Amino acid sequence: MTIVKPSTLPGFMELLPKDQVVFNNLLDIIKKNFERYGFLPIDTPVLEKAEVLLAKGGGETEKQVYEFTKGTTDIAMRFDLTVPLARYTVEHFSDLHFPFKRYQVGKVYRGERAQKGRYREFYQCDIDIIGNGKISLVNDAECPAVIYSIFREFDFGKFTIHINNRKILNGFFKSLEVKSSEEVMRIVDKLDKIGVDNVKEELDKIGMSSENIEKLISFIGIDGTKEEILDALKKLNCDNEDFKQGVEELEAVVKYMRAYGVDDDYFNIDLKIARGLDYYTGTVYETFLDDHRELGSVSSGGRYDNLAGYYTTNLMPGVGMSIGLTRLFSKMQELDLIKKKGNKVSDIIIIPMESTIEKSIEILAKLQKAGISTTIYTESGKMGKKFKYADALDIKYALVIGENELESNVFGLKNMETGDQEELSLEDIIDKFSK
Amino acid sequence: MTIVKPSTLPGFMELLPKDQVVFNNLLDIIKKNFERYGFLPIDTPVLEKAEVLLAKGGGETEKQVYEFTKGTTDIAMRFDLTVPLARYTVEHFSDLHFPFKRYQVGKVYRGERAQKGRYREFYQCDIDIIGNGKISLVNDAECPAVIYSIFREFDFGKFTIHINNRKILNGFFKSLEVKSSEEVMRIVDKLDKIGVDNVKEELDKIGMSSENIEKLISFIGIDGTKEEILDALKKLNCDNEDFKQGVEELEAVVKYMRAYGVDDDYFNIDLKIARGLDYYTGTVYETFLDDHRELGSVSSGGRYDNLAGYYTTNLMPGVGMSIGLTRLFSKMQELDLIKKKGNKVSDIIIIPMESTIEKSIEILAKLQKAGISTTIYTESGKMGKKFKYADALDIKYALVIGENELESNVFGLKNMETGDQEELSLEDIIDKFSK
Repeated sequence: MTIVKPSTLPGFMELLPKDQVVFNNLLDIIKKNFERYGFLPIDTPVLEKAEVLLAKGGGETEKQVYEFTKGTTDIAMRFDLTVPLARYTVEHFSDLHFPFKRYQVGKVYRGERAQKGRYREFYQCDIDIIGNGKISLVNDAECPAVIYSIFREFDFGKFTIHINNRKILNGFFKSLEVKSSEEVMRIVDKLDKIGVDNVKEELDKIGMSSENIEKLISFIGIDGTKEEILDALKKLNCDNEDFKQGVEELEAVVKYMRAYGVDDDYFNIDLKIARGLDYYTGTVYETFLDDHRELGSVSSGGRYDNLAGYYTTNLMPGVGMSIGLTRLFSKMQELDLIKKKGNKVSDIIIIPMESTIEKSIEILAKLQKAGISTTIYTESGKMGKKFKYADALDIKYALVIGENELESNVFGLKNMETGDQEELSLEDIIDKFSK
Repeated sequence: MTIVKPSTLPGFMELLPKDQVVFNNLLDIIKKNFERYGFLPIDTPVLEKAEVLLAKGGGETEKQVYEFTKGTTDIAMRFDLTVPLARYTVEHFSDLHFPFKRYQVGKVYRGERAQKGRYREFYQCDIDIIGNGKISLVNDAECPAVIYSIFREFDFGKFTIHINNRKILNGFFKSLEVKSSEEVMRIVDKLDKIGVDNVKEELDKIGMSSENIEKLISFIGIDGTKEEILDALKKLNCDNEDFKQGVEELEAVVKYMRAYGVDDDYFNIDLKIARGLDYYTGTVYETFLDDHRELGSVSSGGRYDNLAGYYTTNLMPGVGMSIGLTRLFSKMQELDLIKKKGNKVSDIIIIPMESTIEKSIEILAKLQKAGISTTIYTESGKMGKKFKYADALDIKYALVIGENELESNVFGLKNMETGDQEELSLEDIIDKFSK
């Protein structure tokens, strides 16, 4: 038989079981919180018709898509969960109820150039709330409230959800009547390097009035508490409807986020957050781990005016956020920020003698019936090898069962971490784990 | 903008949220039971190197594989979870601990001709226990014990796990010194049609001794309780080591399955079960719903001598079983055998007035903190529309919150199924759901 060297493709994460358990617990935290807030699960196919999945076309993403032909069908692998959501919402429109609050957790595929920290297969965990025609601003607060609950439970350390509203920046620039907001932003970006006076000079050169230059300088200097920022924005007296609406929306989102119980220390207004995608039209979010800003945003999203323009003329606005769990997990592992406690499969491992296997299985069945995850080591071998197995699997308690234990109904429950052993009846053991 | 008609590929199951909730609950039951018995999760990539995944080559399966080239790499989509398990076990050999008890739940891909009841993307839910060199027979009983727990919890009606051992049939035929067991089986299969005498005649024609013909007729007539079948097998006095070992193994597996608490009514010895794959070498399993034999086996598997001969010269025997959930779910839906109770996402939907939205969100936050899944309807519109939404989403309780309710802390909790309404304080509501 020819032996083929077994290996995976580069850029595909594959974990050992002990890390997989940790990863799955994070997935469970995410799903539990999504459902607690009333988001409904969907599970779209990994493969879709290429013409449907790539209806938008163009851009960097398309180059990365895994695409192939089977028979006469052009097939593409999903590269995100948003395009499938748009397709799903339109295809099943008459069977859905709006606002349609959906979550999806699944793998997506991008054939990027392999590089450290980049994955070609990775988990996306998305929530979106889709309206039929319109959708209330409360939803703009609910999404970050869900993300807040999740990251509190992840316990990776202090984090901050940064919120902004695209209408503010767009409206503000419109009110300044600048020809190219990109050019203005490029000049403003140099503020730290060249100082206020040089920035003003350069803005003057491209034809901005001194009044507008002052407004712009005031705008980019705005900072402080949420109330201070909202006040300062109002005091700019910017005469643009988008701007005014953006400020109003932002104020409402802050109010509702507080009502959802999001701790004020864990979110702020950040006028610098814009999100690259032209897709977003209102509220936008990015989330940073305070002690690890270098990771970039660990959960982002925003509000959009129209989810599915490529599939329907119905207007479906929505708002959503997403966690890219594969990359986040890999970073958290590198930084050793993942708490290991509670990440186990089995509570007890039973180690029987050759002659007590059958009775030991009966005891295992009783423990499992009581909800205690139990495994059994039935291979032959020396005791040392068996305890080594228990250790390697991080199982906290070992229960050695010989003839004496069966006769007396007194079992030695050995704590594998401390080495301590308690002498307990089967009923005592069940009691101990029920607590 | 060009509108593309949104649709999925044929042969890909996609569910509405209410069905997805049910499907996910089944997945959760499976995973919970796998873990309760100490199986560890792994999650291999959907895409693998074609040369690795198709190392075995040939056969019907290879034609169905989705295979493509990206850059210069030949890539294949996994078509089962067994080949990836073999690759994984060898690749991570030095980091694993044997017996390696792993489970994997994930989608696999087969580009079959589309037909009713066949899927090109479907969930496999697999458990396997892999030994390094050898593995105890207890594991042959544990696999069906896990499957038993799962199907009891599924509650699809009475089912029976049929077990057999390949060594019995193989050894028996060897002892008869027949040239072609296929030919003998073909003749034996005609028993019901042509009667015993004609079968004997045909066997005589192909050169079997009358002594062996009698043995064969006795063998295929064996039936009864597990003890009766085992007794009858022993009384055949078949002088073949494989046969004797097979009977011994089968007897041990029955004993251990009983120890695991598998109800005798739910499993039997079925000497007709062989499993097509030449892969299996010992215990084999098939599972049937008693009232729906026409569905075929809903969970199958068996013991094999060598998991990963294509990747290593190490001998790794193992035993495993599998549930093909996508097909099973689709059949259970057709037969309306899926219990809907307990399959919900939200316990309560809050319906606020325009003026009570903020306070209502605070109440929602309190309910969620108490572990009650709660959603809120904040779109404007008439009350009827809001209740219709609650109904459509199958949410059992609606909580309308106006100014009066907030002032008095007395809320009308409306049971959407019965129409009854209870007047309760927030604390009462939390109490009610904690029970």
